Formats: sequence, C-alpha cells, structure tokens
Amino acid sequence: MVTRHVDLRSDTVTKPTEAMRVAMANAEVDDDVLGADPTAYRLESEMAKLMGKEAALFVPSGTMANLISVMVHCDVRGSEVILGDNCHIHVYENGGISTIGGVHPKTVKNKPDGTMDIAEIEAAIRHPNGELYYPSTRLICLENTHANSGGRCISVEYTDKVGEIAKRHGLKLHIDGARIFNASIALGVPVHRLVQAADSVSVCLSKGLGAPVGSVIVGSKSFITKAKRLRKTLGGGMRQVGVLCAAALVALRENVKKLEDDHRKAKILADGLNQIKQLSVNMSSVETNMVYFNILDSSLISPEKICEVLEEHGVLAMPASAVSVRLVLHHQISESDINYALTCIKQAVEQIATDGSTK
Amino acid sequence: MVTRHVDLRSDTVTKPTEAMRVAMANAEVDDDVLGADPTAYRLESEMAKLMGKEAALFVPSGTMANLISVMVHCDVRGSEVILGDNCHIHVYENGGISTIGGVHPKTVKNKPDGTMDIAEIEAAIRHPNGELYYPSTRLICLENTHANSGGRCISVEYTDKVGEIAKRHGLKLHIDGARIFNASIALGVPVHRLVQAADSVSVCLSKGLGAPVGSVIVGSKSFITKAKRLRKTLGGGMRQVGVLCAAALVALRENVKKLEDDHRKAKILADGLNQIKQLSVNMSSVETNMVYFNILDSSLISPEKICEVLEEHGVLAMPASAVSVRLVLHHQISESDINYALTCIKQAVEQIATDGSTK
Amino acid sequence: MVTRHVDLRSDTVTKPTEAMRVAMANAEVDDDVLGADPTAYRLESEMAKLMGKEAALFVPSGTMANLISVMVHCDVRGSEVILGDNCHIHVYENGGISTIGGVHPKTVKNKPDGTMDIAEIEAAIRHPNGELYYPSTRLICLENTHANSGGRCISVEYTDKVGEIAKRHGLKLHIDGARIFNASIALGVPVHRLVQAADSVSVCLSKGLGAPVGSVIVGSKSFITKAKRLRKTLGGGMRQVGVLCAAALVALRENVKKLEDDHRKAKILADGLNQIKQLSVNMSSVETNMVYFNILDSSLISPEKICEVLEEHGVLAMPASAVSVRLVLHHQISESDINYALTCIKQAVEQIATDGSTK
Amino acid sequence: MVTRHVDLRSDTVTKPTEAMRVAMANAEVDDDVLGADPTAYRLESEMAKLMGKEAALFVPSGTMANLISVMVHCDVRGSEVILGDNCHIHVYENGGISTIGGVHPKTVKNKPDGTMDIAEIEAAIRHPNGELYYPSTRLICLENTHANSGGRCISVEYTDKVGEIAKRHGLKLHIDGARIFNASIALGVPVHRLVQAADSVSVCLSKGLGAPVGSVIVGSKSFITKAKRLRKTLGGGMRQVGVLCAAALVALRENVKKLEDDHRKAKILADGLNQIKQLSVNMSSVETNMVYFNILDSSLISPEKICEVLEEHGVLAMPASAVSVRLVLHHQISESDINYALTCIKQAVEQIATDGSTK
Repeated sequence: MVTRHVDLRSDTVTKPTEAMRVAMANAEVDDDVLGADPTAYRLESEMAKLMGKEAALFVPSGTMANLISVMVHCDVRGSEVILGDNCHIHVYENGGISTIGGVHPKTVKNKPDGTMDIAEIEAAIRHPNGELYYPSTRLICLENTHANSGGRCISVEYTDKVGEIAKRHGLKLHIDGARIFNASIALGVPVHRLVQAADSVSVCLSKGLGAPVGSVIVGSKSFITKAKRLRKTLGGGMRQVGVLCAAALVALRENVKKLEDDHRKAKILADGLNQIKQLSVNMSSVETNMVYFNILDSSLISPEKICEVLEEHGVLAMPASAVSVRLVLHHQISESDINYALTCIKQAVEQIATDGSTK
Repeated sequence: MVTRHVDLRSDTVTKPTEAMRVAMANAEVDDDVLGADPTAYRLESEMAKLMGKEAALFVPSGTMANLISVMVHCDVRGSEVILGDNCHIHVYENGGISTIGGVHPKTVKNKPDGTMDIAEIEAAIRHPNGELYYPSTRLICLENTHANSGGRCISVEYTDKVGEIAKRHGLKLHIDGARIFNASIALGVPVHRLVQAADSVSVCLSKGLGAPVGSVIVGSKSFITKAKRLRKTLGGGMRQVGVLCAAALVALRENVKKLEDDHRKAKILADGLNQIKQLSVNMSSVETNMVYFNILDSSLISPEKICEVLEEHGVLAMPASAVSVRLVLHHQISESDINYALTCIKQAVEQIATDGSTK
Repeated sequence: MVTRHVDLRSDTVTKPTEAMRVAMANAEVDDDVLGADPTAYRLESEMAKLMGKEAALFVPSGTMANLISVMVHCDVRGSEVILGDNCHIHVYENGGISTIGGVHPKTVKNKPDGTMDIAEIEAAIRHPNGELYYPSTRLICLENTHANSGGRCISVEYTDKVGEIAKRHGLKLHIDGARIFNASIALGVPVHRLVQAADSVSVCLSKGLGAPVGSVIVGSKSFITKAKRLRKTLGGGMRQVGVLCAAALVALRENVKKLEDDHRKAKILADGLNQIKQLSVNMSSVETNMVYFNILDSSLISPEKICEVLEEHGVLAMPASAVSVRLVLHHQISESDINYALTCIKQAVEQIATDGSTK
Repeated sequence: MVTRHVDLRSDTVTKPTEAMRVAMANAEVDDDVLGADPTAYRLESEMAKLMGKEAALFVPSGTMANLISVMVHCDVRGSEVILGDNCHIHVYENGGISTIGGVHPKTVKNKPDGTMDIAEIEAAIRHPNGELYYPSTRLICLENTHANSGGRCISVEYTDKVGEIAKRHGLKLHIDGARIFNASIALGVPVHRLVQAADSVSVCLSKGLGAPVGSVIVGSKSFITKAKRLRKTLGGGMRQVGVLCAAALVALRENVKKLEDDHRKAKILADGLNQIKQLSVNMSSVETNMVYFNILDSSLISPEKICEVLEEHGVLAMPASAVSVRLVLHHQISESDINYALTCIKQAVEQIATDGSTK
C-alpha cells in the first residue's frame, strides 16, 4: 500500500494553499464578460505592472495564452512565426497555432540551452513584400525558462538581441514565459527587465506559483484589446472569474519568493541522482526547478519501467525521452520528499537492473 | 448616490453563494490536464447521468462548449451547420464556428417561438455526395430555451422531430442548452428526456444555476474524447479545476429547483410592466426567466435612454433592439427587487416622456 | 438517336470559337509566375481599364475570383461579410469563404429582384470596436446580374447606395460580376459606371463571353497585389497562362456585343414558354440571358422529369427548384435552336402530363 | 543590346511547342465543371494509368496539386504532416497547408540527397490516441526529384521504406512528383514503380514536360473524388479545360523522352562550370536537370551580381543561396545555348572578380 505521495511529474500538480482557498472563498467578484470582475482587474493590473507592460489579461491556461498571443500578432492571413523546434508551443500545444490559428510555423533548431542561433533566426525571416511564394514572418517566439532544455534560462542579453532583430524587421516578439519568474530569480534579473524586449508575454500562475488555474498575457493596450476579443471567441471569457484570480493573487504575492528554494532543491535532487551509478545528470543544465536524469544503459533500464516502479512507491515522474526521466520541483515538495524519492529511485534502478532479464 | 443594486442584465451576473464559496475552499483537487481532478470527475459524471448521456466535459464557458461541439461534429473540412438566424451561436459567439472552426453556417429563420420551420430545415440539408459546389451538412443546432425569442422553451415533440430528420439524413443534432434546465422545469419534462434526440448538449452552470464559472458538454464517449482533445487545443484545459467544479456541483444540487421561482418572478415583473402605459410585454412569450418589454412610442423613449436612467437608480438592464429592453430574473433577485425595479422603470419612462424634447 | 444538341444548362457550356482557337495557337507567352506573361498582362490591363479600376488579375475560375476577393478584404481574422442568402457565393461555392477563408457570413434576404433591403444591410453591420461577442463586418457583397433571381440586373442607383453605406461604415464592397457585362448591356450603362462604387469586382470570361477558362478580378493596386499572393497560395498561379488569356481577349473584343442578342433570344424563348399552357414565365424577370419557367401543376410534372425527357431529344436544361426549370441563352444558341427547344419542351410536358399516372 | 536569350532560371519557363499549339487549337472540349471535358478525361486517364493509380485530376498548378493532396489526406481538423524542412511544400508554397488548410507541419531535416532520416521520420509520428496535447500525424510527404537538393532522385527502396512506415502507422504517403519523370528516367525505374508506395502523387506538366499550364494529382478513386470537390472549393475547377489538357497530352507523349537529354546537358554544363576556377559544382549531385554552382570566394563575387551581369547578356539564372546559383535545363535549351551560357558565366565571374573593389 502506498502511504506517501511525491508527485514530481510537473510543477502543475501543486494544490491550492490554505491562503488561496480562503482568498477564493472571500473573493469579490462580478461578471467579467459583461463588465469587469474587480479581482480579475486587480490581478491583471498587478501583473501588467510587474512585467512592465501596459495591460494584461487573465486566461484559463498557458496554451490559450500562447494561442491568443500568436494569433493576435499574426492576425493577418498568410503569416509565419519563427520558433524553436523543441519549444512548448510547437511540440505540446496540439499544433493549435496552425490548426486553429492558420499560422505557419518555421522552426529553428533549439540549442541545448534553449536558445536558437541568432543568424539562423535572421535567415529565416521572410518579408510581406518578398517572393510571391513566401508567407510573411510576423512573429518570433522565445520560451523562458525553456522546458525541453531542462528549464534553462534565457538571458537578458539574448532576449534583447532577438528583440532588436524583431524590431529591425518589423516583427513582434512573444515570450512564452510559463516559468518566467523562475528565470528571473535564477538570473537575478527583475522580471520586467527580462521581458523588456517582448511585445507580449504569457505567464503561468498554475505552475511553480501554485495557483489552481490560469495564465496571464501582458502587452500593449491595443494588443490586450484584441486578445480580449479573441479570448471571447475561443471561449476563454469566464464570468465570476475573480474566484480564480483571488488564488492567483495569493500565488503572486507569496510564492514567487519560494521559487528560489525550488531551484535549491533541484540541485540537491540532481546531486543525489548523480550519486546513483546507473544515472547521470548534467549539472550545468540544472538552472531552475527541473532535473532530467539520463540512464546510462537504457537498453537495460527504460524510463517507462523506472516510472512504473516508482509509482508503486508513490513517487510520480515522467519519461522525457528514450533515455531520460524528468523530475520537477515545486513548493509542495520538501527535502524529506526528495530524500524519499532518491531512495526510491536508487532502489528502482537496482531492482530493474537485477530483474533485467525478465523485462 | 446609488444605494441599491438590482442587476437584471442577465442571469450570468449571479454571484457565488456562501455554500459555493465553502465548497470551493474545501474542494478536493488534482491536475485535470495530467490526469483527472476528482471534483471535475464527479461533476461530469453527475451531469452526464442527469442528461442521459454517456459522458461529459467541463469547459470554461458556454461559448467554448458550443464551439467545441460544432467543431467535433464538423471535424471534416467542408462542413456546413444548419442553425437559427437568431440563435446565440450565430449572433453572439463572434462567428467562431467559421473564424476558428472553418464551418459554414446555413441559417434558417427563427420563428417567434425560437423554432425553425421543419420543412425549411430539411430543405437546407446538403449531402456529402451532392453537387460538387455544395458544402456537406453535418449538423443541426437548436437552442433551448431560445434566448432571443425571450427565453421560450423548445418542446420535446419539436426536438424529437428535428432529431428524426437529423438521423434520417445522417446528421448530428446539437442543443445549445445554456438554459436547458429552465426549459425542463417550465415544460415539466425531465431534462434527459428533453435532450434525448440530441447527440450533444452544452449546459451552462453560470447562468440561472449561479455557479461562478463554467459549462458542461455531454454526449457519447467518443464525442467527449474528441471534445477533450479540442478543449486542450483551444486552451480550455485547466489544472486544479475542481475549485470551479465544486461550486458547480452546489449549483446543480441547490439551484435547479430555484429556477421555478425565477419563472414565477418573471411573470410578476411582466405583469407589472404591462401596467405601465408606455410599455407592453407579450405575456405568452414569458415562459421562463426572461422578460422583454416593448416601448410603444420608441421615437420618444429609446431603450438606451431607459437603461441609462435606470442605471442612475442602481437598476441594470440591456437594450434588446431599437424598441425593446431585456430583463432577466435569477435567484438573487427578490420580489422586493422587482417592485423596486418596476417603480424605477415607471419613473424613468415618465421622466423621459416628459423630458422628451431635450432628448 | 439524338442528332441535335441544344445545351441550355448554362452559359458556361460555350465552346471556344475559331478565332479563340487561333489566338490560343498564336499566343505570345511567358512564365506568369516568375515574371509576367505578356498576353495575361494585356488582358489584365484591358479589363482594368474597362472596369475603371487600377489593376486586374486573371484567375482560373469565378469561384476563385470571389474567394480571393472576400479573403483579401477580410484578411484579418474574425471578419464577417454581409451577403444575400440566395447569392452565388453563399449557395454555390462550397462555403469556401468559411471553410477555406475563415470568414463568417451574415446573410440578408435576397428580394425577388436580387437586391437586399438597404435598411437590413445597414442593421446587419457590426463594428470592430463593437460588442466583445461580435465579429467585425468588413465587406458587403452584391451579385450583378443576380443568377438565382433569374439573371436580373442590379441598378447603378442601388449599387451606389450600397457603396455609400459601405463607405460610411468603413467597409469594402465587392461585386460578383460573373455576368456584369449582361447587366451593363441590359441597363444601357457603361460597365465601369455600374461598378464605380465597388472596391473589387470579379468578372467571368467563360460564361456569356464564351472564353474557355477564366475570370478576372479588378480593384486597386494594393488589393491586386494581395490578391496575387493569395492566388499563388491557393494554387491559381499558372505558368504560360497567355494561351488562356489570348482566348479571353477575343471573348472580350468580340462577344460582349453579342450579349444583347442573347437577351433578345431569352425573351423569344420566354414568350414561347408562356404559350405552353402547363408552364408560365414571369416576363418581368427576364432581363438578361436567363429564363426560369414554372410548372403550374408540379405534382403532375416534375422539373427532373422534364429535363430527363428533354435530354432524350438532345436538349439540356437544369431543374432550378421543385417547381421550376432554368434555361440559359448564349451566343452558340440560334433562333432555330430555340424553336427546336420549345417544340421539345411542349412535347415533353404533354407526354409527361399524359403518362402522369405511370410517373 | 541583347540578341540571345538563354533562360536557365527554371524548367517552368518552357514555351508551348508547335504541336501543343495545334493541339490546343483543335482540342475537343466540354464544360468540365458541369460534366466532363473529353480531353481532360483522356489526360487524366492516361496519367492515372502511367502512374499505376486508380484515378487522376487535372489542376491549374503544382501548388494546388500539393495543397489539395495534403488537405484531403488531412481532412480531419488537428492533423499534422511530416515533411522535409527543405522541401518545396514547406518552403515555397506560402505555408498554404497551414494558412489555408489548417494542417500543422512537423519538419524533419532534409539530408543533402533530399531524403530524411528514416528513424527521425518514425520518431516524429504522433498518434490520434496519443497525448492530449499532440496533433495527429496523418501524412508523410516526399519530393522526387528533390529540387532544393539539386534535383536529386529519391530511390524506389527509400520510397518503399517510407511507405512501409506510413502503412504500419496508419498514415498516408504523398509524393510531390513535380519532376517525378526526371527521377524515373535518371533512375531507370518505371514511374509507376517509383510511386507504388504512395497514396497520392502530384505530377507537374509545365516544368520539364513543357506544357503551358497544369499539374495532375493521382490516387485512389475515393481520394480523387474528395480532391475534385476541394478543387472546386479552391477555385481550381475550370470550364473548357481541354484546351490546356490537349497541350499536356502532347507534353506527356513527346517530352518525357526528352528529359534524358536534359540530364545529359546538365552534366555538360556542370563540367563546364567546374572548369571555371572561381566556381565549383558537386558533380555527384547533378543527377537530373539541375545544376547548382558554388562560388568559391563569395565575399568577392555574389550570386546576385553574377545573375545581374548574366542578364545583360540574355542569360537568366537564379541565386540559390548566399554562395550559389541555380541553373535548370529543359528541352528548349540547346548545346549551343549551354556553350554560350558558359562563356557568359566565365566572363561575368572574371569581370566581377576584377571590378571587385567597386562592388
């Protein structure tokens, strides 16, 4: 019987804290579709200010935040967006920018650190008055932190450089900032500075920040005006949404500061994993709250098998590739949980290696 | 200074009750994107059972509920949907079924009672193997109650008849049941019977039922499986969504029975309006919780002006056309509120009639 | 055995004349995708001048001409177009403006003369800064002549009035001018004057004008620049397209003047039909080259049956509704053909009426 | 003054031969939208037979041929297609599969020989019942010959292998066979064998085959039935299209056999270029009718400058990258033209190298 649960699949699994639950119960609300919910208004104002942008909009998910952002920047048919081949929008959002938004993606290879080669980005741009058989590039997307690279941070310098390219070519820059606060804290750069070059940013509240539901998009007033209409079209307009925004406000006030601790715990976990002889973690990629461990002999030990055995012990993790497993830290994982997880992983690996013949 | 607020713009303005707030604060939750939130699961199960369908899905709004339903039934490119020219999907949802879904609408005139002529529906159908220049009809939509006809109920007999046509032609039938419980109660027909002929129904929880946020789609298991994927694409997948579903469960358990009272209050309000000599209400159209009053001399008294004056007294209403105003009842409007509203309306009308020359 | 062929299904059935065939054989051509085909250039220049617009573009079909025009005017997502419920774009073009273009159609009822009520058009307009749940009207479409009304002409006065509305609301006006030359000749108004209020016009060359293939879109330079890119996207860019344009140039030079004769022949045919006692033609609707005859007792004689019997005698016609048949005149139908057709129709009707019991 | 014209930009620049012009002038035609044009029917039948498929459809361009094919195979919303990052569909067709078709592209790197790594293709496949956040792969596309790799041929073995993967995963395989006859001849493999594994193939008639306009799609009967409807939607249905098909039939009968000569001439040109000391051609990539030459010191001599100087001498060529120029052979380029072009290129290169300082 499982008596302990340590869910390391994602930082999306956090549950609302007591303070959030109280805030939801007491939220001042109104119909946010007909007019404006006061709590939503407060959250949006705070977020806009934090991010250094004119305006903000609460949406039900990070996927909608990115979809709306791409579609607003590319609202003219025949648009192309440049984005990393390994970024969340391209890989994990159902191809919605094409299948819903009719936007053509032009991918540039993501380097191990989550960036794209600057020259390749520039070479990929195609102008509206270019060849008759070219779509028109209207947007570049970055992701910070970059999940598929292990949660690595994109620097201010790099972001600014991409922003300059965008500006020079009349393009917009969107940052998928699902975990932008993690980047801000790990880099020691105020979050508004980190996204200064961006025309829009999507920020997730229900990942490391621990709110139950929601993301916020920030940008210029005219961008947000268009985003609001599109949110309605997609069905993301919600009525007394203040109940969710109240929890999000608590997340913003109380949990941003906890992210640093998540990063510290990630390093502890990574160190521990490196001491398991069948596994290895590239420590230089552990910059924030994610840890990817590689299995040295994956012909013997598969990621799926490890996760399966771990689950029997209440530890949840996700295979990340044919040779690696992803673990994500968040404020509801204690150091004791980490030790427990490490023990379980060590046992699981040894057990599988031993039972290998029966795999 | 306004001291009293009577918001009659819509039944979407209801605020969560104390019981809902407690339920939200205590909701058992989990990541509904990675796995299944237990409270969402409970709500979806209950709703599916109530509606007599195999499965259900919680979504952030009625607009998304309808958009997903239309897109799933019309998931093959080149589809056409038959729907009323005055129905909510066609008029108030940004044309999303075309602009997002790429579905072509073929409207049939809505009669004053919210139905469409049966023969006209059948004449509008175009088959996939029909003329090369025809799109393929794949869906018929009804709306029950039909908001733009004053919240009138669509009968079981009519719904069944449309269902038979759909079946005979290999089409699907979707019911926009934003206020299907109002219809069920007004008609005295169990809700599952009312939607028996439908392949899918969208049900709103944040209108008369008073939940803060959300709608539910019901249908067959395979329909809901596709709907779930599309919900993710559109960005309607939410994490610890149980906090919203907990409130919705309270709405379902406690507020369905209150709808009858809303209908009673609508008749009281309508009667009162009919006693104001400049106004008239067609009593036969007051079947549920909506009241539309006509202004007999709209050259003198405009709907906008009435609403403006009412707002000064804390009574909120919405112009419905160049000659009419819409008032909607819900469980947070008391009889005393109705009397107050009637007094304010009478005064407003008289004042405007007097000041007419300065309009 | 059928020895004579009189094809009255449509004016699209005309075959290239000897002069066109010679022109095709001798056409000066070049790659119209890489650069510009000189014959295409000549056709486009001539058409632009004739229509009084800045620029023109040859496309493979009237359907593409309309699709491109609607999509260019509505190139921002979330657009709505106002058009007649009985117009060609809405009824006979596969719903492509929605299924391909993502544009939402708002239909206004076509009156028997092919126009729409001016007040209804204006009432249907929804502005980009309007309610959050409204799409943005960006275009009004007219059709001249209006095929489904029997080829009736839309007057300059009406067109100008709609143009004024469009201008006042910041909308564009597109005219589906598949048979605009028929209207010009029947009304005695120069074609450029007839389309003066329009931002774009699609003109068909392969209907009454008798060219084998093609339509031309005209409009401002910037409109045509966008149209050209979209033509490429849709796959309508053709290489040595001069071979088609050469025939079209002949059509333009030689066949416009023949349309008057088509109209005269239509009246002869209509007169003859009116003398068949089971049939009737509304003479006031025979303004150009189309004749719709009604069957007085359609329970006895169906349009399908008439067309079937006629086909046995080499006369081709198309059922237009449950009670009517459409006949279309063109320059390859002689008066002798008309007499032959009338004889066959009379016989067919009598034979069917007699054999009725065995239908 | 330019007295000689040698257009080496593309094989799309060929002009119709005398035989084609005669065929067009004498083509038996009918309305191919209402029924079937006999010459189109003949061309489609011949092409279907040649390619070993059930049915065929004539369309105005290769872009439309590919767009229709992708859209028919991916006619269910939420589809993904796997294709080469350097293939024509992805790079040169305006992103139409996304912007018009709503299909999400998943690119796999094209190797220098135009193929994609087999394991990478398989790894890219995502199943309809896969993760909720994945689109559904429904199609793999190959291009044969592969233009951007220099017109290299994709072998039967490779094609079959990709076909097996597609079959194993329930996907379709489309071949962009714009120049499939070049591949067939260069490989010495009957064209039907080369495309045996494909569910659809687009074949261009207006490239090396020299017809003025058009491509043909081949596939199963049910595929072509859907393609025909979509062709109508896109506006690719043409009336008396037999005038174009007549020329295409001549192309098919007379010019396929000339392709071998084009390949021979390409090698002569390539050899000649390799003897110019500032240039180099990778001879192993010259498999068909394309020659790409690299400029050894592109800082001194730019592709644009070479093309500019050549144009003054009537030789047309296209820059292919920052360091290379593309030359394409076709049946209207003689050996004497090649010698003239070589002379001009040599002079141009020397002149630019000399004038370098003033560049």
